[in-house]
Amino acid sequence: MPLKIVPVITPFINNVLDIDLLRNHCETLLKSGIDKLFIAGTNGLGLSLNFNEKLKIINDLDIDGDKLIMQIGSLNLDESIELAMAAKKKEYFAISSVPPYYYSDLDADSIIRYFLDLSKYYRTIVYNYPRMTNHDVDSKMLEKIIKLGGNIIGIKDTVNDIMHMLEYKNINNDLIVLAGPSTHIFAALRAGVDGAVSAAGNYMPNIINYLYKNINSNDAFKFQILINKVINAAKPFGIYSANYSLVRIIKGYSCGYPRPPFYPLSETKEKELEKIIKNILKNGDNI
Amino acid sequence: MPLKIVPVITPFINNVLDIDLLRNHCETLLKSGIDKLFIAGTNGLGLSLNFNEKLKIINDLDIDGDKLIMQIGSLNLDESIELAMAAKKKEYFAISSVPPYYYSDLDADSIIRYFLDLSKYYRTIVYNYPRMTNHDVDSKMLEKIIKLGGNIIGIKDTVNDIMHMLEYKNINNDLIVLAGPSTHIFAALRAGVDGAVSAAGNYMPNIINYLYKNINSNDAFKFQILINKVINAAKPFGIYSANYSLVRIIKGYSCGYPRPPFYPLSETKEKELEKIIKNILKNGDNI
Amino acid sequence: MPLKIVPVITPFINNVLDIDLLRNHCETLLKSGIDKLFIAGTNGLGLSLNFNEKLKIINDLDIDGDKLIMQIGSLNLDESIELAMAAKKKEYFAISSVPPYYYSDLDADSIIRYFLDLSKYYRTIVYNYPRMTNHDVDSKMLEKIIKLGGNIIGIKDTVNDIMHMLEYKNINNDLIVLAGPSTHIFAALRAGVDGAVSAAGNYMPNIINYLYKNINSNDAFKFQILINKVINAAKPFGIYSANYSLVRIIKGYSCGYPRPPFYPLSETKEKELEKIIKNILKNGDNI
Amino acid sequence: MPLKIVPVITPFINNVLDIDLLRNHCETLLKSGIDKLFIAGTNGLGLSLNFNEKLKIINDLDIDGDKLIMQIGSLNLDESIELAMAAKKKEYFAISSVPPYYYSDLDADSIIRYFLDLSKYYRTIVYNYPRMTNHDVDSKMLEKIIKLGGNIIGIKDTVNDIMHMLEYKNINNDLIVLAGPSTHIFAALRAGVDGAVSAAGNYMPNIINYLYKNINSNDAFKFQILINKVINAAKPFGIYSANYSLVRIIKGYSCGYPRPPFYPLSETKEKELEKIIKNILKNGDNI
Repeated sequence: MPLKIVPVITPFINNVLDIDLLRNHCETLLKSGIDKLFIAGTNGLGLSLNFNEKLKIINDLDIDGDKLIMQIGSLNLDESIELAMAAKKKEYFAISSVPPYYYSDLDADSIIRYFLDLSKYYRTIVYNYPRMTNHDVDSKMLEKIIKLGGNIIGIKDTVNDIMHMLEYKNINNDLIVLAGPSTHIFAALRAGVDGAVSAAGNYMPNIINYLYKNINSNDAFKFQILINKVINAAKPFGIYSANYSLVRIIKGYSCGYPRPPFYPLSETKEKELEKIIKNILKNGDNI
Repeated sequence: MPLKIVPVITPFINNVLDIDLLRNHCETLLKSGIDKLFIAGTNGLGLSLNFNEKLKIINDLDIDGDKLIMQIGSLNLDESIELAMAAKKKEYFAISSVPPYYYSDLDADSIIRYFLDLSKYYRTIVYNYPRMTNHDVDSKMLEKIIKLGGNIIGIKDTVNDIMHMLEYKNINNDLIVLAGPSTHIFAALRAGVDGAVSAAGNYMPNIINYLYKNINSNDAFKFQILINKVINAAKPFGIYSANYSLVRIIKGYSCGYPRPPFYPLSETKEKELEKIIKNILKNGDNI
Repeated sequence: MPLKIVPVITPFINNVLDIDLLRNHCETLLKSGIDKLFIAGTNGLGLSLNFNEKLKIINDLDIDGDKLIMQIGSLNLDESIELAMAAKKKEYFAISSVPPYYYSDLDADSIIRYFLDLSKYYRTIVYNYPRMTNHDVDSKMLEKIIKLGGNIIGIKDTVNDIMHMLEYKNINNDLIVLAGPSTHIFAALRAGVDGAVSAAGNYMPNIINYLYKNINSNDAFKFQILINKVINAAKPFGIYSANYSLVRIIKGYSCGYPRPPFYPLSETKEKELEKIIKNILKNGDNI
Repeated sequence: MPLKIVPVITPFINNVLDIDLLRNHCETLLKSGIDKLFIAGTNGLGLSLNFNEKLKIINDLDIDGDKLIMQIGSLNLDESIELAMAAKKKEYFAISSVPPYYYSDLDADSIIRYFLDLSKYYRTIVYNYPRMTNHDVDSKMLEKIIKLGGNIIGIKDTVNDIMHMLEYKNINNDLIVLAGPSTHIFAALRAGVDGAVSAAGNYMPNIINYLYKNINSNDAFKFQILINKVINAAKPFGIYSANYSLVRIIKGYSCGYPRPPFYPLSETKEKELEKIIKNILKNGDNI
């Protein structure tokens, strides 16, 4: 079965990273049947964690490294390399990295060189998310990176175009191609990707499990639509903040709060979201 | 005369910030007639500086605070606030901040709240650069921020649309509106903005000075075209890296090197750029 | 099996529409196992045909109407309606229409009203191609059109996002959802769309047939990649002009020439393309 | 003084072009001090006029040709050429043409060739409107067209970037560079373009006149803001339809109605718009 990966949200209490809440969240997900955890990704607010916070997670999370992929991309190569080495020491499954972001006019050669320099230190899953990074590490660019010796074992591709994902398989069938958007798991798995990294798994791991198991049934599309309904309902509340509320609302435990500029939902807002969600998910995350 | 501001590049030696080279660069520019310096902006690789580096600049640069605007935007509000307070202590002219970047689907309310929370600590120049941040803090959004009590004294608007800049003046004529793109100084000044923050000033301060002084002459457009030629010639080399070479080539002193993932030009490449530039600027930065 | 539809190219000789060549092309395709033909679409240069030319096709093509879908979208509703009535008289399977194009700031209500007014006259397949028309008739807009009484039987969706296609099925499972891009047949069929309208069918009908029949085999992806290679090879020659050459090169018969501003390939260019294509398709369109 | 040009709206009565209303509108504008009229442009719904309608305008409008620029761009070169020759016969000031539109992936060479082939027949003002045509005939492309012998006398540039306009002057200072957007007249004239083609002139010719005459006064910006307020107020009503209502509301005469898919405002809607506009323009178009 394709890989079920959750990009875990990162819990803060009073704007301070809470490693115990993170560990609890991770363990809960793994017990639910999730295969691996993607740490410090977009939904994990990884771009807002500083070096020390990311290092602390690597060193103190205390979960079987093989279950973990650490996103260590930053605009400072030396810091990213140091984090890569720490993850290697803990025998993480892999590191992952977005390309240098913000600088939308950074030249392609610098991006290629970044991945070459970084992946020297540990096997890397490239994390492609053009809508955020303003760069598309597409199959042509990835092919160059690999041909130049990059230690690339896979790609997390957060785009809505399934062929964009599949074209990586055409470079080398052994590359692990992971679909990013929770809204496109159905189409991606049907088309044959190797797994999905789905933020919706933070609060709907059982539904995600069910979707994977029954991907070829007539039911599968309905479950994808259900997932999308939940996501669309949460969007107006600010998706990065709503994620934290959704864990409380659907799974009944706390994974802390976001940290500004990601502002937590007010109590009133969370109640409002709860009402909407309970209307969509009558049985919560139970199948 | 409108404000001449340079977003200074940040010198690194062996990937370490070199505060002495930065001070020298700043003093050289101020002596050339530049009015103020914009620190840790886009060209200053400010997004890649960590908290400690930015704090070090504020505390150790040792230049008249009134000449300085410190860009302290980040995805961590608490860190940005701490830097704001440090800049206030040094009596900086103002802080400046990009809106939260990367997260292109962050809701507008969080961006507004970010600027409200930040500007409580010090007077703020909003730094709008939609092509990088994926958010447009346009005149409508800025008006909301100001109406809700934001301590906003100006805006640096890095877009190609001069009316987009001028619309801020329509909120409140006292707002300091600064044009961002070096390629659009001519049109922006002619239309009446309050100044420009021009990266080209790092290596062509005299030409910029001349353009300001003669903005209503027939010559002015030709000087803008000259500036644009230099920028266009540098682009294929990677503009953020080429900036450092251009200081050496045109001004003859060193402002250090960029830090990966911004890779310095190889010696060969720098020679190649030098040849092209000397062909465009026969007299260098002398008028 | 899902519907195999080809958006036929429109033959011109000396810039004049040649209905006999068109008929021959259509009949050849139908004999190859293609189910239906989409006439005067994007690849058919339908937007450049005037009213009389489109009427002539409807009246003189002389092919079983049930096999035909006529694209009659224009910026003149009355003309489009007249063509719809002519197609109805000939018992076409359906008409199809792009939304009003060019006017990228046309309001959504006018687009909705256009489809309501048009589909009163005949059953309609909405033709969505946002990259060309600058409007996205997405599932939300289509749902409005249908709820307001539009006689919409299907949608041709030319986007790269398979979920965008599938979301129409969620309005009403009876809607015929047709994938537009030839490059995405594999992923679209795997995910369960009702068919594809593939320009590549103009010159590779057998390969398309084979892809449909073996969609669940391991081979299928390879055939999609083969199709994409041909398309990518033709692109630098100007895809709308190259289409005509590809019929000659791969299928060995003439479907005429494009009409300016779509300029036919020079003889030299066509030879050059032939060499490239024969290298990709060693056995031509034979499986 | 820079050229004051109005892209006249095209009157329809019961969906039929009304040449008398068009003549009346044109003459009224010329009497108001407008220099030239741009016919069958975007606001003139020129893209929705068929060949015969455009020919009828050229032949029957009966206004001094020197005052007229006819937009004859289409996806059929032969038809465009025939219209060019008709305009030449009537000694029009120039023809104008958008590049081939809709086909966003048309290759640059075809666009260049289109303008070469067309301008052989009459002097041409290239009409650049990337947001509509999906192609940017920028200064680099225009330079190629001119170098290859194109008979290009000017450019109407409908973009928000003033430098984009000015860069054409850098090809050849004799090129007539005309600013397209009514919202950017102020900044464009201040920066030195040769004129503007402003749809707002259809219903505010006096205000436009005043803006030109006082472009260097402190007042000028206020008048631009006033124009922009009117445009922004009209937008929610559908700008292409609202244009017709605005002539009635502000100037008190009829210029007919749009033709579907541009639907005229209902009486209620026109009243609603009138109320809003009268609140913005207390004295109408009087200064």
